[in-house]
Amino acid sequence: VTRSFVNLDDIARRARRRLPRLVADFIEGGAEDEATVAANRAAFGHWELVPRVLVDVSKRRLTTSVLDHDLSLPVGLGPAGLARLAHVDGEVAAARAAGEAGTVYTLSTGSSRTIEEVAEAARGAVWFQLYLWRDRDVIAGLVERARAAGYGALVLTVDVPVIGRRERDLRNGMTLPPRLTRANVVDMLRHPRWLAGLVRGSPLTFANFVDVPGRGRSAVELGQYVNVEMMNPSATWEMFSWLRTIWPGPLAIKGVLHRDDAVKAVDLGANGVIVSNHGGRQLDGAVAALDALPAVAEAVNGRADVLLDGGIRRGTDVVKALALGAQAVLIGRPYVLGLGADGAAGVAAALEVLRNELDRALALVGCPDVGLMNRDFLVRSGSGALA
Amino acid sequence: VTRSFVNLDDIARRARRRLPRLVADFIEGGAEDEATVAANRAAFGHWELVPRVLVDVSKRRLTTSVLDHDLSLPVGLGPAGLARLAHVDGEVAAARAAGEAGTVYTLSTGSSRTIEEVAEAARGAVWFQLYLWRDRDVIAGLVERARAAGYGALVLTVDVPVIGRRERDLRNGMTLPPRLTRANVVDMLRHPRWLAGLVRGSPLTFANFVDVPGRGRSAVELGQYVNVEMMNPSATWEMFSWLRTIWPGPLAIKGVLHRDDAVKAVDLGANGVIVSNHGGRQLDGAVAALDALPAVAEAVNGRADVLLDGGIRRGTDVVKALALGAQAVLIGRPYVLGLGADGAAGVAAALEVLRNELDRALALVGCPDVGLMNRDFLVRSGSGALA
Amino acid sequence: VTRSFVNLDDIARRARRRLPRLVADFIEGGAEDEATVAANRAAFGHWELVPRVLVDVSKRRLTTSVLDHDLSLPVGLGPAGLARLAHVDGEVAAARAAGEAGTVYTLSTGSSRTIEEVAEAARGAVWFQLYLWRDRDVIAGLVERARAAGYGALVLTVDVPVIGRRERDLRNGMTLPPRLTRANVVDMLRHPRWLAGLVRGSPLTFANFVDVPGRGRSAVELGQYVNVEMMNPSATWEMFSWLRTIWPGPLAIKGVLHRDDAVKAVDLGANGVIVSNHGGRQLDGAVAALDALPAVAEAVNGRADVLLDGGIRRGTDVVKALALGAQAVLIGRPYVLGLGADGAAGVAAALEVLRNELDRALALVGCPDVGLMNRDFLVRSGSGALA
Amino acid sequence: VTRSFVNLDDIARRARRRLPRLVADFIEGGAEDEATVAANRAAFGHWELVPRVLVDVSKRRLTTSVLDHDLSLPVGLGPAGLARLAHVDGEVAAARAAGEAGTVYTLSTGSSRTIEEVAEAARGAVWFQLYLWRDRDVIAGLVERARAAGYGALVLTVDVPVIGRRERDLRNGMTLPPRLTRANVVDMLRHPRWLAGLVRGSPLTFANFVDVPGRGRSAVELGQYVNVEMMNPSATWEMFSWLRTIWPGPLAIKGVLHRDDAVKAVDLGANGVIVSNHGGRQLDGAVAALDALPAVAEAVNGRADVLLDGGIRRGTDVVKALALGAQAVLIGRPYVLGLGADGAAGVAAALEVLRNELDRALALVGCPDVGLMNRDFLVRSGSGALA
Repeated sequence: VTRSFVNLDDIARRARRRLPRLVADFIEGGAEDEATVAANRAAFGHWELVPRVLVDVSKRRLTTSVLDHDLSLPVGLGPAGLARLAHVDGEVAAARAAGEAGTVYTLSTGSSRTIEEVAEAARGAVWFQLYLWRDRDVIAGLVERARAAGYGALVLTVDVPVIGRRERDLRNGMTLPPRLTRANVVDMLRHPRWLAGLVRGSPLTFANFVDVPGRGRSAVELGQYVNVEMMNPSATWEMFSWLRTIWPGPLAIKGVLHRDDAVKAVDLGANGVIVSNHGGRQLDGAVAALDALPAVAEAVNGRADVLLDGGIRRGTDVVKALALGAQAVLIGRPYVLGLGADGAAGVAAALEVLRNELDRALALVGCPDVGLMNRDFLVRSGSGALA
Repeated sequence: VTRSFVNLDDIARRARRRLPRLVADFIEGGAEDEATVAANRAAFGHWELVPRVLVDVSKRRLTTSVLDHDLSLPVGLGPAGLARLAHVDGEVAAARAAGEAGTVYTLSTGSSRTIEEVAEAARGAVWFQLYLWRDRDVIAGLVERARAAGYGALVLTVDVPVIGRRERDLRNGMTLPPRLTRANVVDMLRHPRWLAGLVRGSPLTFANFVDVPGRGRSAVELGQYVNVEMMNPSATWEMFSWLRTIWPGPLAIKGVLHRDDAVKAVDLGANGVIVSNHGGRQLDGAVAALDALPAVAEAVNGRADVLLDGGIRRGTDVVKALALGAQAVLIGRPYVLGLGADGAAGVAAALEVLRNELDRALALVGCPDVGLMNRDFLVRSGSGALA
Repeated sequence: VTRSFVNLDDIARRARRRLPRLVADFIEGGAEDEATVAANRAAFGHWELVPRVLVDVSKRRLTTSVLDHDLSLPVGLGPAGLARLAHVDGEVAAARAAGEAGTVYTLSTGSSRTIEEVAEAARGAVWFQLYLWRDRDVIAGLVERARAAGYGALVLTVDVPVIGRRERDLRNGMTLPPRLTRANVVDMLRHPRWLAGLVRGSPLTFANFVDVPGRGRSAVELGQYVNVEMMNPSATWEMFSWLRTIWPGPLAIKGVLHRDDAVKAVDLGANGVIVSNHGGRQLDGAVAALDALPAVAEAVNGRADVLLDGGIRRGTDVVKALALGAQAVLIGRPYVLGLGADGAAGVAAALEVLRNELDRALALVGCPDVGLMNRDFLVRSGSGALA
Repeated sequence: VTRSFVNLDDIARRARRRLPRLVADFIEGGAEDEATVAANRAAFGHWELVPRVLVDVSKRRLTTSVLDHDLSLPVGLGPAGLARLAHVDGEVAAARAAGEAGTVYTLSTGSSRTIEEVAEAARGAVWFQLYLWRDRDVIAGLVERARAAGYGALVLTVDVPVIGRRERDLRNGMTLPPRLTRANVVDMLRHPRWLAGLVRGSPLTFANFVDVPGRGRSAVELGQYVNVEMMNPSATWEMFSWLRTIWPGPLAIKGVLHRDDAVKAVDLGANGVIVSNHGGRQLDGAVAALDALPAVAEAVNGRADVLLDGGIRRGTDVVKALALGAQAVLIGRPYVLGLGADGAAGVAAALEVLRNELDRALALVGCPDVGLMNRDFLVRSGSGALA
């Protein structure tokens, strides 16, 4: 573990120094005015903790079980596309660090390393994220590859019927994959170590699709294929049910904010519901993930695992999410910035910071087991309590 | 469409560069402390969207019908006086751009081009805005001209019994029409392109009144006539009923904020109610337009079209207005700044930005038809939802 | 009326330029952290106006009757001690300007001109403010002088059992009356016009007490007498009742914030209740005057006049106070700063600004008579109204 | 009393000038993002005072009785470790100043002077704070020493099962006791007077433990012993009951925020409940102390004394705490900064500032006795009261 990171902000700061601005902006930015990015963070500040005292907290239990996987802490790594942008080792480094930390890594469909490469490198459980894309054969093929490679769960992202408008990327001339332009060449050249990583080895592209629809596609063509051609705004619950039939293992739906959608998903066989607004990268103005959590958790009522994705930066954030009904949380930017800061070691550092903070928070809040966290530990901030 | 505008703020920024400060301030400013200008914007931030997933949003229907007119999107151009201040092509350019975008343009009575000129140039539906001025013969004459020229609806503005105090204009020495003074001459001379437009062709004045009460009036005399002599703080509902008798077509009342006034207007024959505080240019401290909308929409209860005017800057703002009961919205500053940025192309760009944002927002919120938007898609911001 | 004042802030700005900092701070400052000064202002922003339309507002009635006096607008001048600090003409100028504007001036007991001088110079109604000081003979003497001089009402200030701690004054070395010190001499010398006014004619002192308890007292001794010796923290309702017996005319109690105190005062014969926290100069952390108004007005229930003192800076502030139950408001800092800006002309300008703003606000809010203003014109800000 | 301190902020400012930054940060800082430090202060601003008038406040009674001790004002000094960091006279100076002010000093277990030294120097009541550490013999020994030395009450701190993460200290290289490092040597050398105090006389260490477990330990070893080895996250209510059996005198529990814990403590024999989040130094994100107070006070219902610790900076803060159910408050940073500013005189100044502010506040709020303060004097800020 890198020694000098006091908290996740430290990791983010180092990543910002090491990465070209257009990459850091791509990682940290969100849709339009980034109101939802801000709301995701602010929502945690709207709750305060009411600790209990003289509870034996000498042994804290951080372990939990989500989607039939045992995790050493209730914090998994969510999907993030083209992780190689942040570090040459990309998804492989993240998967390794997650496994070594005893938690799960979720591989994005839009990864820069293949399903198989990541599975081979992984040190623990890996889940595979996918979209309900236009071509069911492609989906079925990806699912089969994930099954064959040993992925333990599917995470179906449903909040990308179309791609959100990330204005930082538009202004930076950021594309997936990025191309050198007059506007960003200086930015890239000022980060030679990053640039060396980018051009080393295989080209940065959507690795899972290189062999799928036809060989010989360029990175740019693959970007067009993945980002535009395959996007499927006509996907409905019928397609979800179909996916359910071809994947017998644990299946989670990611991007649910409305309680009725959560119930529907569980009725149709979802084993997990991931409350998420895609980190504020899709619909700007969407409700903060944490604010959507209580209604979803109440509606799901224990019939599936509920996870929270969005805005986690402190151990106490994890505590608050658990208190409001989540079994675990996923993080995105913190570990991608960890990659940018220091590759696998940076990811490990991010997880270690959160683990330590969560462990301390459990002790200080007087709850020795993440499974015992509940609403009685929370009050709304500035409410004057009984007032 | 101008390519480089990422959002409406970009358009506003360009307009501010191209226009003298006193003109930009005239467009963007409001009454007194501009508290209502700010409240109009802030009100949208007090609501967050709760998207639905796995809805087929492959085909989004943005079309709506307002005041018996079919619009390609639920965004029309509201009335704005002396548009030539922003660009030499003024109202003609705006009307053209609106028509080409498939939406409506509302011509202000206080326009710098005549009813007839604008009608002739228009590419689609145009509505005509007027006041209940002192002289009924003048009103009747304007109504008859609008009818003859083919205007499809009347928009009666009722929130100007007296003119609001816009302190920026007072400090800038801004008058309608503007005059060169020692205080503003430098400001104007630094924008020679704008100045050239101003002095080219016919003088900038209230074009609809040049021929009405007597020929030979100077621009200054016309300003006095329009802004002072004709203002009618004694207009009452009786006069509204009279107007209803002389105009058989669609009639909307603009500037309503109280539910009882909305009901009264509909009882007396209004076909549309435009919830508006005149963009914060009249009564500073007036309730935000969006905050006034729910009560009005509930009270009107489908007996007339309800429109929202004030503070729209994003596609999601349109979504929120529809969810709170509006059939459509009107924009003002965004298109006038579009004019200032690039004439008709700037207006087209503003509408295109909003259309794209609205289209994407509908997809991301999981509502494929503007007519299906409703309160279930909204929660109050930072409410902790179920908390 | 001075022409160039767009609003009250303009007047304050000019006063700040013309006055030494220690004097401007004395006028504008409040107790401790000045939280109540800020709260008084902020409270107005927590309400928004819901205008009515198509009401005949061609004739606006601003006149009201308070404490048996007819005022041309519902804005009177509250008491302020040692007005000569702001301008050499002090209380005489303020009383004259108030009378010429058709409203009332309230002379402070701690004035720099005598009861008799001000009465003689006044052009309209004057009220006299006093405290329930230790010595009933002194009070009785002041009341008799006020009666003889023709003052129309007594205003009894009850929120100064001890003097609030105004930290700006402590830091500035400000005393009443001010003395030249090393710390403030430069400040004073940089304002020679003000300094000339200060040293011209009779010395700056508590004029009403020069002849009362014994001739020959110096200004400093008088300050000690008025500010310290006479202060009476033991005054109770019994003393109020005694005052009621010696003054048959209209009597208002100033500094009431709790509904029960308002009821008590009316039960014991008060004709008016002035809701005030002394402009935030006494108890820092006290409830904002406007926030205290509704409960007091409801409790008084028409049995006495209710006035609001504190935070009025705009015509719409007056409207809001009336809507929440006040018959009129008193202003303090705005007219004292008017004195500092331009003597009697500055006071007249302040009143004229407020009159024009109030007149316009009544037209725009659709209420042609200050007596018809009510709660239906208000909503809480940012409430989403019906939400 | 030092003359030039207008308020507690003045004292803090002087302390910041006199102390190395790492020491000032140690005193003023809190855990992680210091959200709870800020919340503790902000909570007071969420309440406003509603004064009563014409109450005889000529004699104000500030005295109260807490844990069987009569205090001259309802403000005691809470425990703070290693006070010698702030001033060479450390705990001895603080105890003396408290006694001379007629209030109580609470000696921290982690003090830099011994139980016996402080008792001997004290001029009034002293309480002794301790933790439920691993070794009951050590606790029993400390309790016996406190009894023998005449301490009047025990204060058991229960919110340190583990130590909070204070990131300022981590970044500053601050340890207990502090060590010269390359990072902080310049900071220390720039404060030679402070440094001289530090190296003068006996070494800065945890004085109470020098003789306890074994002679010859170095300061660093003692720090390890006190901060790490003895910490006891397994302490439960059983241990509290045990402590109750070995100490017959007044016993208060410090660090309670949940009403159920307060009831439990009282059920098990606590005489006092100190509502506290350790000044925001332990669990960041914990509820503000003042916000936790009403529920605790209601639950305790007079069966024990309730004290508030956290965020007191003004006399009106004390008033608000009393109104919400506290019998008294404890201060921490204000007196430690007083030490830093001017040793015992600085502590005396801090208490004198608070006493004067409280005395004035009682007069201005119309409550002549701290025992009569109640909820009727409070409203929530910005609530529009009756609205």
